[in-house]
Amino acid sequence: MPLPLSTLNTLPPADFVAALGAVFEHAPWVAQGVAEGRPYPTVEALFAAMRATVEGAGEERRLALLVGHPELAGRAARSGRIAPDSIAEQAAAGLDRLSEAEYAQFERLNTDYRARFGIPFILCVKRHGRASLLATFERRLGSTPEAERRVAEAEVMRIAAIRLDALVTGEGPLRTTGRISTHVLDTVAGRPAAGVAVELVEIVSATEAVPVARAVTNADGRTDAPLIGGRPVPMATYELRFALGDHFRRLGLDLPEPPFLDIVPLRFGVGEPEGHYHVPLVATPWSYQTYRGS
Amino acid sequence: MPLPLSTLNTLPPADFVAALGAVFEHAPWVAQGVAEGRPYPTVEALFAAMRATVEGAGEERRLALLVGHPELAGRAARSGRIAPDSIAEQAAAGLDRLSEAEYAQFERLNTDYRARFGIPFILCVKRHGRASLLATFERRLGSTPEAERRVAEAEVMRIAAIRLDALVTGEGPLRTTGRISTHVLDTVAGRPAAGVAVELVEIVSATEAVPVARAVTNADGRTDAPLIGGRPVPMATYELRFALGDHFRRLGLDLPEPPFLDIVPLRFGVGEPEGHYHVPLVATPWSYQTYRGS
Amino acid sequence: MPLPLSTLNTLPPADFVAALGAVFEHAPWVAQGVAEGRPYPTVEALFAAMRATVEGAGEERRLALLVGHPELAGRAARSGRIAPDSIAEQAAAGLDRLSEAEYAQFERLNTDYRARFGIPFILCVKRHGRASLLATFERRLGSTPEAERRVAEAEVMRIAAIRLDALVTGEGPLRTTGRISTHVLDTVAGRPAAGVAVELVEIVSATEAVPVARAVTNADGRTDAPLIGGRPVPMATYELRFALGDHFRRLGLDLPEPPFLDIVPLRFGVGEPEGHYHVPLVATPWSYQTYRGS
Amino acid sequence: MPLPLSTLNTLPPADFVAALGAVFEHAPWVAQGVAEGRPYPTVEALFAAMRATVEGAGEERRLALLVGHPELAGRAARSGRIAPDSIAEQAAAGLDRLSEAEYAQFERLNTDYRARFGIPFILCVKRHGRASLLATFERRLGSTPEAERRVAEAEVMRIAAIRLDALVTGEGPLRTTGRISTHVLDTVAGRPAAGVAVELVEIVSATEAVPVARAVTNADGRTDAPLIGGRPVPMATYELRFALGDHFRRLGLDLPEPPFLDIVPLRFGVGEPEGHYHVPLVATPWSYQTYRGS
Repeated sequence: MPLPLSTLNTLPPADFVAALGAVFEHAPWVAQGVAEGRPYPTVEALFAAMRATVEGAGEERRLALLVGHPELAGRAARSGRIAPDSIAEQAAAGLDRLSEAEYAQFERLNTDYRARFGIPFILCVKRHGRASLLATFERRLGSTPEAERRVAEAEVMRIAAIRLDALVTGEGPLRTTGRISTHVLDTVAGRPAAGVAVELVEIVSATEAVPVARAVTNADGRTDAPLIGGRPVPMATYELRFALGDHFRRLGLDLPEPPFLDIVPLRFGVGEPEGHYHVPLVATPWSYQTYRGS
Repeated sequence: MPLPLSTLNTLPPADFVAALGAVFEHAPWVAQGVAEGRPYPTVEALFAAMRATVEGAGEERRLALLVGHPELAGRAARSGRIAPDSIAEQAAAGLDRLSEAEYAQFERLNTDYRARFGIPFILCVKRHGRASLLATFERRLGSTPEAERRVAEAEVMRIAAIRLDALVTGEGPLRTTGRISTHVLDTVAGRPAAGVAVELVEIVSATEAVPVARAVTNADGRTDAPLIGGRPVPMATYELRFALGDHFRRLGLDLPEPPFLDIVPLRFGVGEPEGHYHVPLVATPWSYQTYRGS
Repeated sequence: MPLPLSTLNTLPPADFVAALGAVFEHAPWVAQGVAEGRPYPTVEALFAAMRATVEGAGEERRLALLVGHPELAGRAARSGRIAPDSIAEQAAAGLDRLSEAEYAQFERLNTDYRARFGIPFILCVKRHGRASLLATFERRLGSTPEAERRVAEAEVMRIAAIRLDALVTGEGPLRTTGRISTHVLDTVAGRPAAGVAVELVEIVSATEAVPVARAVTNADGRTDAPLIGGRPVPMATYELRFALGDHFRRLGLDLPEPPFLDIVPLRFGVGEPEGHYHVPLVATPWSYQTYRGS
Repeated sequence: MPLPLSTLNTLPPADFVAALGAVFEHAPWVAQGVAEGRPYPTVEALFAAMRATVEGAGEERRLALLVGHPELAGRAARSGRIAPDSIAEQAAAGLDRLSEAEYAQFERLNTDYRARFGIPFILCVKRHGRASLLATFERRLGSTPEAERRVAEAEVMRIAAIRLDALVTGEGPLRTTGRISTHVLDTVAGRPAAGVAVELVEIVSATEAVPVARAVTNADGRTDAPLIGGRPVPMATYELRFALGDHFRRLGLDLPEPPFLDIVPLRFGVGEPEGHYHVPLVATPWSYQTYRGS
């Protein structure tokens, strides 16, 4: 249960630290460092203070903040010896359900990375789909220690922002969530298309597509809730699949068999996890269009 | 090498029958029956005479025409004991490269069909993709003997028309071929998109997609030849896949990573093998549309 | 100032009649007839009661209700001898600014209509553009007395509903208003197009277009308010005109002179004054599309 | 009647000059200068030789070539004292049917231009619509003598190229013509829309639209001939107007009255008279799109 900022602003310091101590992994000193600066007018101001505390800390503490992070799909994660937030984050990314070959790949990457840079590989996994996560890992292995140090600290901030956002409500929330939404317009009838089944899948590779969400369009041609919402949209290639043929059959249109358009796939890439990806389908039995809408 | 109709019109009868005797499987009597009626002004007129000869034949001959047809992916086909045209037709449909499980499925269907209707299952395989072929087989097993007799004769005519069309050139050709074509229009530049890689695949099932053709668009945004042409378009679900992201990257546009649109799939069904399916892509980095064009 | 329904429900009867007595022209007896039935849970229920009062009245009163209506652009209207609501309604439709020829045309139509049907021509002018108003007048002149009696009573109800809607707020409002809205999407940038000048004109004839509204799109590519809203959309042919060329010039795109697309007109007809006509523009410098959206 | 290049290549010199002497106004010496260089393999080579002859001529002759050109809508033109080609060209641009006010405007511009630059205002009128012609005239009045000298010579070459193109047929024709074409696709039926009335008008100003061509689409959804073709497309703003509502009414679709889409205007600018402007309409009763096609 998230707490109102106003409550956090007035808690005894120990309770405040208990509430926010896990925002930075194994580093309750960050929460301790900002307790005295209360009250904060906005969540953004609170987070800015936490960020400043980290940036003002000594080298030893800052390095420890990185070193304290668990490896992705590493031994500690597999045996449950990591922070609860990390467990949940890695599970959400599917890193608790890898094949043995995939674990082996991560183990090799983790070992190589730590050998090269002296810190664990840190990535805000909630912002990446599986393919992006591995591609980013491979790419960063080729970087320099200076660049990786900066990137690792930036990722720590992203992880912390998402955790803080989940713990606090109030003015000036952090912008950590994105959205995938759609709507279907039937331009034969000139009306929103209701009752159209829609599926969202993540395209991991040429042969692997992972279902993400299913929905049916309502009377406005929209889904009642975004297909992804209230969290970052993992960077990935997605496909929306619409049962358009069924829609026009239900309306009694005379379609060939098979229909020219039956399941319509719209494939698109997400590179900005905090963005809004509105991907509509404007269609007839013989034509369709899409665009990144708003 | 196809012969001109004018040549066929003047060949000695025996040579004429040698040329067209295989148009109806194991039934050179059809060619014999139309030799005397020469000259024919058009290929259509020649074929109409052949059809009339079949329709005017006695029940025994007409039944033999059906019984003489080889089963699809049957034992005779596997051991090469069928007519050369049938070998080529079945191979083009991939029926010579089935798995053991698929052969077993065909064997079961063939046996059931023959037991139920007393004739082999006859289908103009050039007009069907793999999924359509099996679905049609299953569906026709549930039909009545009277209906199947009519359907089988109609399929024999379709097979014969395609064979004749391949053997003769001249006025009034039979309409046995269809086409899949495309073009790509870049509406950022207001010009055809040249150099775009396009792939056509047949979607056999949720997990199986078979490559059919590859091409690169020319200066007119078209492929130099249709992706399927000069033959019936097998009834199937297809996907055209366009390397649109590469196109806009080559032009130097500033795209996110991954781009919103990278590989664009256009999925469509073909139900009319003799039809022209022109499926264009009109696109920007953030939108696209398609339609059945002309 | 509209009154809350809850207030109307508790006013002394005389005040209630004073408030709603003009809803039906020269017929305060309708308001009197429903005063006793208070309280009404919704505006709809109140209007249904008024409608029932009219329908239950004797022939004399019902006829008087029609006869009491002023003619459109008639002598009474020109000399100000009609009810204030009628003055405003006719002015909104431009009927107070006609040319002498147009007044003469109305006078002829009014005379013919009254001679033929014995009642004035009654039309809810707020639901018609100028061309539609005249076309409807001409068409109805060819109708039968029975049909015109029914149509006239239906129009009286429409006029009354709009008047009531303007006088009362509360639950269950009458559906008397429609909307014309738009948004502009730039699919080169993949973003809403901000700062685009939009003009809405009513196309009266091949040579006459009357400006209705002007706006500039905001950061969402929308206009801050609908181009028509809070009132019926007069039945008419409209044209939205977008300064699209200026938009792409501002973004620094290299356009020919003149640009392929500069002022983009979208022309559409409105036949349902209570409908929502969302007419977006999805555009590049070389292409655009529109549809009736939602 | 145009002559084949092969014929021109073998004519006696005097006949050759008689045939091509008017290509450059009042300057048969250009044709004389290239007679000896025959045979020319292409029309382009012949024109290149004529251009080189002009460019190699002395200042006196080159200036005379400019001075010899008639003014646009000038006194000489009005009294018929200009070359027959010029008469026809000015008439095609409507310059023989101006109002007195327009003649006065041209007279003022002609006088100002000649006073400022010492040569008549020269423009290849076939490449300009009325609005473009006047705007260009006004703009060029503000230029410098050096720039105008160059522009005038370039325009003389354009005029000569069009005249030569009309006189000669053969290999390597000059590229002096452009095209406006369209096609209409009905995406409710998935077919070209046949029988759709199309009108092309030139938008001269906010209140003046001049009809250019009318046609009806054929079975392919195209017009039998381009709406403009075989000549330069005058630089102008055009509007294509499609009777789309009639099309869907003929097909028996249930449309509101008035229909959402009835007459659909597509407005576009032409800045490249030798270009191909293919402007299709892809439509349903509730949506449409267009683009510069190919």
